[in-house]
Amino acid sequence: MPPTLPQGNAIIGQSGGPTAVINQSLAGIIEGLKGYAPVKKILGMRHGVDGLIKAKPPVDLTTLTSEQLEKLARTPSAALGSSRSKPADADCGKIFDSLRAADVRYFFYIGGNDSSDTCRIIYEMSQRQGYDLRCIHVPKTVDNDLMTNDHTPGFGSAARYVAMAFMADDRDNASLPGIKINVVMGRNAGFLTAASALARQTTPGSEHDGPHLIYLPEVPFDTDRFVADVSDCLSKHGRCQIAVSEGIKDKQGHDIGAKLIVGGQADSHGNAQLSGSGALGDMLSSILKERLKGPTGKPPRVRADTLGYMQRCWPDPSPIDAAEARAVGVKAAQEAMTGLTDGSIAILRTSNHPYRVEKRVVRLADVAAKTKTMPPEFIQGHNNVTKAFLDYCRPLVGDLPTMFKLTM
Amino acid sequence: MPPTLPQGNAIIGQSGGPTAVINQSLAGIIEGLKGYAPVKKILGMRHGVDGLIKAKPPVDLTTLTSEQLEKLARTPSAALGSSRSKPADADCGKIFDSLRAADVRYFFYIGGNDSSDTCRIIYEMSQRQGYDLRCIHVPKTVDNDLMTNDHTPGFGSAARYVAMAFMADDRDNASLPGIKINVVMGRNAGFLTAASALARQTTPGSEHDGPHLIYLPEVPFDTDRFVADVSDCLSKHGRCQIAVSEGIKDKQGHDIGAKLIVGGQADSHGNAQLSGSGALGDMLSSILKERLKGPTGKPPRVRADTLGYMQRCWPDPSPIDAAEARAVGVKAAQEAMTGLTDGSIAILRTSNHPYRVEKRVVRLADVAAKTKTMPPEFIQGHNNVTKAFLDYCRPLVGDLPTMFKLTM
Repeated sequence: MPPTLPQGNAIIGQSGGPTAVINQSLAGIIEGLKGYAPVKKILGMRHGVDGLIKAKPPVDLTTLTSEQLEKLARTPSAALGSSRSKPADADCGKIFDSLRAADVRYFFYIGGNDSSDTCRIIYEMSQRQGYDLRCIHVPKTVDNDLMTNDHTPGFGSAARYVAMAFMADDRDNASLPGIKINVVMGRNAGFLTAASALARQTTPGSEHDGPHLIYLPEVPFDTDRFVADVSDCLSKHGRCQIAVSEGIKDKQGHDIGAKLIVGGQADSHGNAQLSGSGALGDMLSSILKERLKGPTGKPPRVRADTLGYMQRCWPDPSPIDAAEARAVGVKAAQEAMTGLTDGSIAILRTSNHPYRVEKRVVRLADVAAKTKTMPPEFIQGHNNVTKAFLDYCRPLVGDLPTMFKLTM
Repeated sequence: MPPTLPQGNAIIGQSGGPTAVINQSLAGIIEGLKGYAPVKKILGMRHGVDGLIKAKPPVDLTTLTSEQLEKLARTPSAALGSSRSKPADADCGKIFDSLRAADVRYFFYIGGNDSSDTCRIIYEMSQRQGYDLRCIHVPKTVDNDLMTNDHTPGFGSAARYVAMAFMADDRDNASLPGIKINVVMGRNAGFLTAASALARQTTPGSEHDGPHLIYLPEVPFDTDRFVADVSDCLSKHGRCQIAVSEGIKDKQGHDIGAKLIVGGQADSHGNAQLSGSGALGDMLSSILKERLKGPTGKPPRVRADTLGYMQRCWPDPSPIDAAEARAVGVKAAQEAMTGLTDGSIAILRTSNHPYRVEKRVVRLADVAAKTKTMPPEFIQGHNNVTKAFLDYCRPLVGDLPTMFKLTM
């Protein structure tokens, strides 16, 4: 017997750092809900729960045509606007006033671990208030740090950007040899920084390919060891391309980058600003220029780029990531329409050769405000990743270009 | 009567900052020379004139298959290695020793204005020494700053990257509103920074599209005016996306960015380091955080990215730029094979609707060590570009994605 579903409207919100495919999930939820009688209208929150707290009228998404939905899906970043707010107790009443005013019975929230925590808070509030609200979290994050997920929509496209950036930049570094530091996004999890290793080709003559050194947040960063690593690399390859996570930490576990940013800004989840500044890369450059001076006192050529927000919004996503982001949205809608009251959609890998996944429902509490980091079997020594990581990551990014090298 | 051509080998060098399509020009020269009897072997300099000065044996390019040539052409950055050296008088003897040892009679040098100057120096040396050497410069530069050229191979692909970056980043900025600064390459010419304006869509609802403010090296940068501009933009759009050239200068004409880089490094042409650091963006961020504090003392959300080396090497070039880079290489070879002794190849636009160009030979001295900057008709006020610039730039970058916006 089909479950009894509350009659009312559905509302969808987007939260946290945007990705190149978060609108695919938005389109997927809209698609998945269409044609179900209990859902009268499909609405969009403006800037996530901020719009509800501020009683901004929701956006009507019901009337989008299929063509508009496709254009929306292909547009990077959060079309509804995003939010980094964690609802405080004082906000609860306002949120429920807005939900009641809009007759909302289905609440979908696309975001990362902080967003799933918001989803959990709102579901628990609805229970306490005796208001029948179904709350489903749809995963997204370029950090790939959600528990219970093999990987997270948004990561594959960001990893694709990072791999292509390192691949091309490695050719740049080979043409004008020196030390090149590229700082990669990732607060506590090193997956995206690790994806730089996909830039290494497997063709003959690729034994000198960068990145030569990879520094993850999971491995305490030691400056002396870093300088020695770079010096060894220069001796071996005559140049050195380095991937550094913006989230590298010292032996005490403190972020190294956060305190370098003048007037660094934190969000309401307590996350300190790490992105949107070149300070970490510049600091590491200065150290290398100073400590690797030659016998004549001349510093080596050192350049640092911080890959920045292009990683999460570059408008050429991984095709597999785009499809999966869409599919988790559709799955969330379908689960809600078959009686799921609360939960998160997770991607589980069932096979690697050929690559196959399935989507399943997990408990909000298993995802909310928790962080998955790189498992030990993905980390090699203190400055590299394993083949197991490459095998894990490669199917997620789509086809990569190949770099031709002259035999010189 | 066909001209008498010296019998011997051809050598090709790549110089200056690499681009995404500089190997297209290399492939074009090789293609263009094939089958001409006077040319015995086609050689490659290792790292430009540095390889000649250091007597490094050249690379034999004669045996590359068509398939290898295509792969080479599609690989970004300088496959032969690049150089930023300006040959000193003491180097001249060494260069000619190497050229004689390799029996070189045709010297092709792919690069920017400094590289065309190197080409000119070597041609004049050959004249003084009575050594018959044909010296042809093939243009490349992402800065688009070569005199006598409508535009320069390499620019279109970099402009494409910049336009796509601003387009996607604008959606990111709209989703999490605040101030976003993106620092763009360009030492003295603002063409690449100006290309950010291609990110503005022409579809309805695009009147709030970024970039909202564009700061070029051609217009002296005034900090007070900058702060006022950003403040006005926040009032108008609730957010502000800003394009800033790495080459912005103060009223005295001094680079603002160069002196911010700790241990900044210059090349032998006297160019101070501007890229490979986030210092300029971070400094401008600090100013805005400090001077745009709200009544409660809370600074606005400010983030800065420096687009960095991805601009010049991103492995997804503008198709038209790739084709033109190839064609100037072919043209250079053909001109040498029909008697040209020295010169540079330039692209001239003969029509904009439809877009058409022709390649012509110009004198080395007309390009060498000179810099073209944005003409006044491309600059609007102190922080924008004109429609004339957009009409000029649009055909060079290829098709751009469109960004869908919800009516909110």
